[in-house]
Amino acid sequence: MTNASLLPDVLKELDRTRKPALERLFALLKIPSISTDPAYAPDCQRAAQWCADTLSEIGFEAAVHPTSGHPMVVATDRPKVPAGMPHFLFYGHYDVQPPDPLDLWTSDPFEPRLAREKANGQVIVARGAQDNKGQLMTFFEAARAWKKVAGDLPVAITVMLEGEEECGSPSLEPFLKKHKKALSRDLALVCDTGQWDKDTPAITTMLRGLVGLEVVVEAASRDLHSGMYGGAARNPIHVLASILGALHDRSGKVAVPGFYDGVKRPPARQLKQWEALGFDERAFLGGVGLAQKAGETKYSALEQVWSRPTCEVNGITGGYQGVGTKTVIPAQASAKITCRLVPDQDPKAVIQALRSFIEARIPDDCNVRILDPHGSPAIGIDATMPTIAAAAQALEEEWGQPAALTGCGGSIPIVTSFKTALGMDSLLVGFGLDDDRIHSPNEKYNVQSFRKGARSWARILARLGGEG
Amino acid sequence: MTNASLLPDVLKELDRTRKPALERLFALLKIPSISTDPAYAPDCQRAAQWCADTLSEIGFEAAVHPTSGHPMVVATDRPKVPAGMPHFLFYGHYDVQPPDPLDLWTSDPFEPRLAREKANGQVIVARGAQDNKGQLMTFFEAARAWKKVAGDLPVAITVMLEGEEECGSPSLEPFLKKHKKALSRDLALVCDTGQWDKDTPAITTMLRGLVGLEVVVEAASRDLHSGMYGGAARNPIHVLASILGALHDRSGKVAVPGFYDGVKRPPARQLKQWEALGFDERAFLGGVGLAQKAGETKYSALEQVWSRPTCEVNGITGGYQGVGTKTVIPAQASAKITCRLVPDQDPKAVIQALRSFIEARIPDDCNVRILDPHGSPAIGIDATMPTIAAAAQALEEEWGQPAALTGCGGSIPIVTSFKTALGMDSLLVGFGLDDDRIHSPNEKYNVQSFRKGARSWARILARLGGEG
Repeated sequence: MTNASLLPDVLKELDRTRKPALERLFALLKIPSISTDPAYAPDCQRAAQWCADTLSEIGFEAAVHPTSGHPMVVATDRPKVPAGMPHFLFYGHYDVQPPDPLDLWTSDPFEPRLAREKANGQVIVARGAQDNKGQLMTFFEAARAWKKVAGDLPVAITVMLEGEEECGSPSLEPFLKKHKKALSRDLALVCDTGQWDKDTPAITTMLRGLVGLEVVVEAASRDLHSGMYGGAARNPIHVLASILGALHDRSGKVAVPGFYDGVKRPPARQLKQWEALGFDERAFLGGVGLAQKAGETKYSALEQVWSRPTCEVNGITGGYQGVGTKTVIPAQASAKITCRLVPDQDPKAVIQALRSFIEARIPDDCNVRILDPHGSPAIGIDATMPTIAAAAQALEEEWGQPAALTGCGGSIPIVTSFKTALGMDSLLVGFGLDDDRIHSPNEKYNVQSFRKGARSWARILARLGGEG
Repeated sequence: MTNASLLPDVLKELDRTRKPALERLFALLKIPSISTDPAYAPDCQRAAQWCADTLSEIGFEAAVHPTSGHPMVVATDRPKVPAGMPHFLFYGHYDVQPPDPLDLWTSDPFEPRLAREKANGQVIVARGAQDNKGQLMTFFEAARAWKKVAGDLPVAITVMLEGEEECGSPSLEPFLKKHKKALSRDLALVCDTGQWDKDTPAITTMLRGLVGLEVVVEAASRDLHSGMYGGAARNPIHVLASILGALHDRSGKVAVPGFYDGVKRPPARQLKQWEALGFDERAFLGGVGLAQKAGETKYSALEQVWSRPTCEVNGITGGYQGVGTKTVIPAQASAKITCRLVPDQDPKAVIQALRSFIEARIPDDCNVRILDPHGSPAIGIDATMPTIAAAAQALEEEWGQPAALTGCGGSIPIVTSFKTALGMDSLLVGFGLDDDRIHSPNEKYNVQSFRKGARSWARILARLGGEG
């Protein structure tokens, strides 16, 4: 039997097992594997074990590997790979973002439920429903169906899942280096990106990088009464606000000297292809209650999110935050900042530029601490690889629409790590949508994305294995 | 027996009952009567009842009066006041500020304890130890000793205690108006201020007013992923930081147009008297870990905190505040702002000036909400009143130092309310110190302040009652 002749039965098996597939996803979504908060470390461990058990049940040989942080799951679909057979590394992450603000969820973020939305039909609502539990389960289900129908997958697959994607992946690179031989494959398959729209699949060929740090401004040695000290004592919230208020100029440009070093505009050809996608800026912003594009005035919204670097304050805190008034001058104030990077920006240089910008604005009497500076560069993927053509064909067969080759504003540092640590390229295929509310309250994943995602992977595996 | 001849026995009684006096204060400090947080409403009720019970035990006729907020306690020392006898209204508040940040307390804020500090000797550590439970108990103890020794106080006293001083006193003015006849007395005695220093008593004759509001800036309809939307979507933290960063100019002046309308410099005579106090600016700032005066460059620190208006951000919040990184563009960000006012500034006009300043800086696509604007004007008290002279004499007798006539940077809106609602002046005598850490972690009250405070009130009552 050829991959092509087996495929219809594999797809039929996926259609037949829709209900148990959903139950399996729900079981994983119930585990609050919030990697950034140490309080949830046991849940991360539990999620890793659940993934390993599930892969074993499908027919993989799976193991949970401890790290100095949350564990890694590694599994292989066969003990020995026949010579000449393509061998791919599937990557996913079982950890999720914190669910807060909790009061904006309409149900418990870790009690997944089905809901119906006008624009999306049936959706799965839970933290991680899309990012990345729903997405990685599309691949698990495709692999399960292939194993069931054909006994083996059309290609050799190693699965690697991490549990620190949402907190900077500190254990990843050491792990890749340690297990370089077992993990260096022909290509990485990464399912952590989106479609072009609900009915159009996409392959992502450009990803922004990320730099992050926290700024803590300290003034007095304790909180002060604003009546007793107000007027004479330094208020660190004022100092911090002045700095953050100066990060951007009036045209929306980041005002940090050196920030744009190395930044180029994409080739005209690429900009033209993006223009042809007919991106609906009003719908993009309107979908989240905005009517006007912010940021750099001279670029389109699509260009802004795919090819322009940003500097955003993701969180700020200082002083009294409870109910009512407290007349306090706090001892400190802090902010979390992340920057999205584009190709040829150096994360280290961006961190240094930010540090200099901040430090130059700290009065003599204050102290500043820059905590946890970290970063990874942006990446551009060679869109002419044959594997991209094969995946594009499989996606078109499933969706009845050609796959769009897109940029992505988000960062998937794993792609950089695969390239730098293992010399391995990545194929980025995912089934997320802009309105999935990932990292936000009421995160969802369309049931259609989940089902057709699994069918897409079944087809991609067949194509990657060759028609023979 | 005359008041003067009874006084030595009253003072002896106070010295004899030091231990039970401290136990009584501790009992009150154990009640977490945090008025600004609705969760503590039952504790406020409990604190009010404790005060009423204690006053009854001393020999007052006391009652707890419900309001739409936390209750008021009213007590009188005798059923009928003889014609011609002076009659005063003692005011205090049984509510306290929230204790947070809790992790900076070295012990439970509501488990009072004695500690020893090099500069202060024995101190009482607890939320409210000074503000206002310790202070009001100095008066209770003086009254208790007078009742015990003489059977009656040298003057007629009505006590009124509120439980909303730390949250804007919403129920106070309606209550004053409703009970105008019972509460309109010759003069209010208010024990909520400080000494000049540990060994020098003070009478406060100038108080700053207060204006407060909360600003909420709203952008998108939900939290956004900074990868998917960053660059094109408005970040409300940036908007808020720009506004707050613009509140002050480089010379430390508040940059809100109209803010200084009506503000005058105190008379040269007054400035000269303040200068003569030998205020140690370096010690004042150094005591809280600061080395440089902030704020308006052209005024001394003493002038800044006593006679200049301020605009302070007391709290700011937005986006992710937990451990680690979250790449979110939040839907909203907010800040709590209070301004200290000086005589002739109109609170309503200051609120309007702030509102205009903020609204002018909100981009079309954002929404701003100004929550809970409230305020009370500053007050100057006539330092030539005979009751001030009597109190000054009593204080000098107790402390062996003339009482300083001072300004106070803090706001005691009650003094304004007494003047406007009841036409009644106030005598402001208190035993707080700059290093009492009120509104901050590890609030304390010197045991000496508590003991000599009670003795001071015993002497003031004798002086107010006349020597005969």
